[in-house]
Amino acid sequence: MNLILTLRILGALLLFLGGSLFAPLPFSFYYSDGIWSVYVLSAVICFVVGGLLFSFCKSSKELTVREGFAVVTFGWTVFAVFGSLPYLISGAIPSPLDAIFETMSGFTTTGSTILTEIEALPKSLLFWRSLTHWLGGMGIIVLSLAILPMLGVGGMQLFKAEVPGPTADRLKPRIQDTAKMLWGVYFLLTMIETLLLMLGGMSFFDALCHSFATLATGGFSTKNGSIAAYDSSYIDGVITLFMILAGINFALHFQVLRGKGREFFRSEELRVYLGIILVATVIIMIFNWTGGVYFHFAENLRYSIFQVSSIMTTTGFGTTDFELWPVIAQYILLLLMFIGGCAGSTGGGMKVARILLLFKHAQVQVFRLVHPRAVRLVKLGNRPVDKEVLQAILGFFAVFIGIFVIGSMLVAASGMDLVSSASAVVACLANIGPGLGSVGPADNFAHVPVFGKSVLIVCMLMGRLELFTVLVLFFPSFWRK
Amino acid sequence: MNLILTLRILGALLLFLGGSLFAPLPFSFYYSDGIWSVYVLSAVICFVVGGLLFSFCKSSKELTVREGFAVVTFGWTVFAVFGSLPYLISGAIPSPLDAIFETMSGFTTTGSTILTEIEALPKSLLFWRSLTHWLGGMGIIVLSLAILPMLGVGGMQLFKAEVPGPTADRLKPRIQDTAKMLWGVYFLLTMIETLLLMLGGMSFFDALCHSFATLATGGFSTKNGSIAAYDSSYIDGVITLFMILAGINFALHFQVLRGKGREFFRSEELRVYLGIILVATVIIMIFNWTGGVYFHFAENLRYSIFQVSSIMTTTGFGTTDFELWPVIAQYILLLLMFIGGCAGSTGGGMKVARILLLFKHAQVQVFRLVHPRAVRLVKLGNRPVDKEVLQAILGFFAVFIGIFVIGSMLVAASGMDLVSSASAVVACLANIGPGLGSVGPADNFAHVPVFGKSVLIVCMLMGRLELFTVLVLFFPSFWRK
Repeated sequence: MNLILTLRILGALLLFLGGSLFAPLPFSFYYSDGIWSVYVLSAVICFVVGGLLFSFCKSSKELTVREGFAVVTFGWTVFAVFGSLPYLISGAIPSPLDAIFETMSGFTTTGSTILTEIEALPKSLLFWRSLTHWLGGMGIIVLSLAILPMLGVGGMQLFKAEVPGPTADRLKPRIQDTAKMLWGVYFLLTMIETLLLMLGGMSFFDALCHSFATLATGGFSTKNGSIAAYDSSYIDGVITLFMILAGINFALHFQVLRGKGREFFRSEELRVYLGIILVATVIIMIFNWTGGVYFHFAENLRYSIFQVSSIMTTTGFGTTDFELWPVIAQYILLLLMFIGGCAGSTGGGMKVARILLLFKHAQVQVFRLVHPRAVRLVKLGNRPVDKEVLQAILGFFAVFIGIFVIGSMLVAASGMDLVSSASAVVACLANIGPGLGSVGPADNFAHVPVFGKSVLIVCMLMGRLELFTVLVLFFPSFWRK
Repeated sequence: MNLILTLRILGALLLFLGGSLFAPLPFSFYYSDGIWSVYVLSAVICFVVGGLLFSFCKSSKELTVREGFAVVTFGWTVFAVFGSLPYLISGAIPSPLDAIFETMSGFTTTGSTILTEIEALPKSLLFWRSLTHWLGGMGIIVLSLAILPMLGVGGMQLFKAEVPGPTADRLKPRIQDTAKMLWGVYFLLTMIETLLLMLGGMSFFDALCHSFATLATGGFSTKNGSIAAYDSSYIDGVITLFMILAGINFALHFQVLRGKGREFFRSEELRVYLGIILVATVIIMIFNWTGGVYFHFAENLRYSIFQVSSIMTTTGFGTTDFELWPVIAQYILLLLMFIGGCAGSTGGGMKVARILLLFKHAQVQVFRLVHPRAVRLVKLGNRPVDKEVLQAILGFFAVFIGIFVIGSMLVAASGMDLVSSASAVVACLANIGPGLGSVGPADNFAHVPVFGKSVLIVCMLMGRLELFTVLVLFFPSFWRK
């Protein structure tokens, strides 16, 4: 591991973070919230630290896979730490742990909050909070479609974006090309949603913040009551649509823009993803109807599909307290938390494609018992899946369950009840936001004990970086030259 | 699939069941409970049905793998149905579904009960209840060490008993040889425990019944309060020891009897199994101490190690209501439910060896990211594990989690709360007995709705037969000739 080169890149990332800290300034001036100096000071700190790292750590070596791992993990960590400066300096969140929790939740597009009174925050700070989602989402798209496939993490090789241009193995140019194209789509969708939300009566500020949170499948709202605050079926509908879009592989969106619309529905993962949303919505509607929660079909559809999309895509917006729904509906939502969005989207969780391949693997195993001599391969969209990739996915599944179990145990040890601790861990590990019990959609994470919060911060980071990216750092041989 | 041959073997099994229905007669006469005719009538029904099947279904063909699957699954089902006759005919359990639940729970060595007043049952019926455990345990030992490895189910090939004698591929003689040796060990351990329990003041009847339930890792007690009814640290100790012994691969016990005691502790699975019991006990003791549940070390040790062993080996005996323990202690117990005993023991769950190999697989996956060109195999006790076997184990893990999820959803749909439905499913799927919530150690399964009970019956059967044995029957091609 080339530590010097890693530090240099982290320095560059800090300079970028410093630059983005100027973005809330217009809102600070417009709303005259008087905390413009907070952003300037935060930016200066980032520039000084980043500048020092960038100029003193010089290395002529090329970036290799090992530095790739280190940059990704430490990059997100550095962002969470330095991105928390505006909360701390303004005094809006006095505890450093809470501020880092909120920022990590932002950059990992989780959306779990420790704030009890969201609307009490200055507008520009709410903007920064939503911006951390959007920047995090940008990072995720490139991470999952360009960086992780090259690093070979958890079977992500399957989902790499088809990148035109140089095929040389040097990481930088390929990542840059991919990034530009995908960010174009991301930017475009954000703008369209902002416009549509404004047409529904949202202010430009609220529309922009909610679009940031939707496209990043984050879930931070500028309102205490989340999307329920608007009580508009139009707004619910627009956000439902864009949550579903944000949970789709961005490489597919790019194909559509290039005029290859037919490719879109050929994706097996996409079809299964939409199928799960459909089936889950129908089942939940049936139980919400028989359970007497909603009597009108339109109302039932509106709330049920919103919640299913919000949880499945790991956004975490709320229009209702689903803990008042029948247990079976809550159970289905809990299940969707584990599945998550498509690979290559901003959604978290285990990803639809992995769950799909897991099922296919299990099916092949049973098939082989009946036909011991038959050869049957696991396929995804008519193409056989490489054995190495399949093993990586099986390993990912085992590690995900393992970390969920250990995390829940640690949070339970800090004194929370069973349902709350387990659902808090999956809500953070799958980057969703709200869980069940005392961290449910009508509650927040403020009351979680210090130790529990620390565990959840690590869960958010590990979940977002597909687990393995973080785990490799614990191998002593990783650090040797 | 040769249906005629399968039916013939099921007929033979029914004749055996009919014979074993005479076993409660001495107790019926001794305690003069007046229901001796119940057993005679039940036996006659078994003899008639079994005799008809055995004599009319004639087949000269050899048993193949396919009939193996069918005989195992239908054999257990037939036992659960016909074994419920004494409950039904005596009127002790009026509902057929409840009677089948209780019998399936017995033969699968689960130990979940729908009885609210256990001591109200006639003594001879309590004996029959415990005997279903013991007979089920006999079946499991042979199943896991001789039959499943030959059928190739879920990686069980790893754990087959070394069988002396003919190496031909014909199933019957090998199974018979293996069965005789292993049953010898099983019988011996049962006798020793019965003696030791009698030395602690138990009646012969109670000692025998509890030994049946211990060696089978079943959990049915003859007392309403389970083992807590005796309130004796000696009895707790004896049962703890024998639960731990029953959770060990019986092929290892056999090695010890043959004088190969050194082999015993060489087993990596055994060492991990004992290590988990030790670590879990220590952690739970610490939390029970700091949580103020127990103040005396000896008392803390006695209750903690009993409960850890009872859950880990999937026995399900109780000496205390662990729902009054700190949440983290309950969480650890919930975790142990999934792990279960060693492969080749009467314990259920996923088995220690599978969990161990899962961890090793995950470790190799992360290692390969750091060293992409290195070759590192997954090993168990210095021997590399065949890739096919590893894939079967990964498939087993995925299916186990999948069935747990679907089962919990179905039970939740019948109207139970989240913790109760999920823990009821794992308690049945891992063949433990008690769960948490409304099916906790101080409760029973009487109140579970009809649909939920039916799901749990299927879970007990699938869990006991290592899932795949049952799943193959759902492949249409399995039934073709």
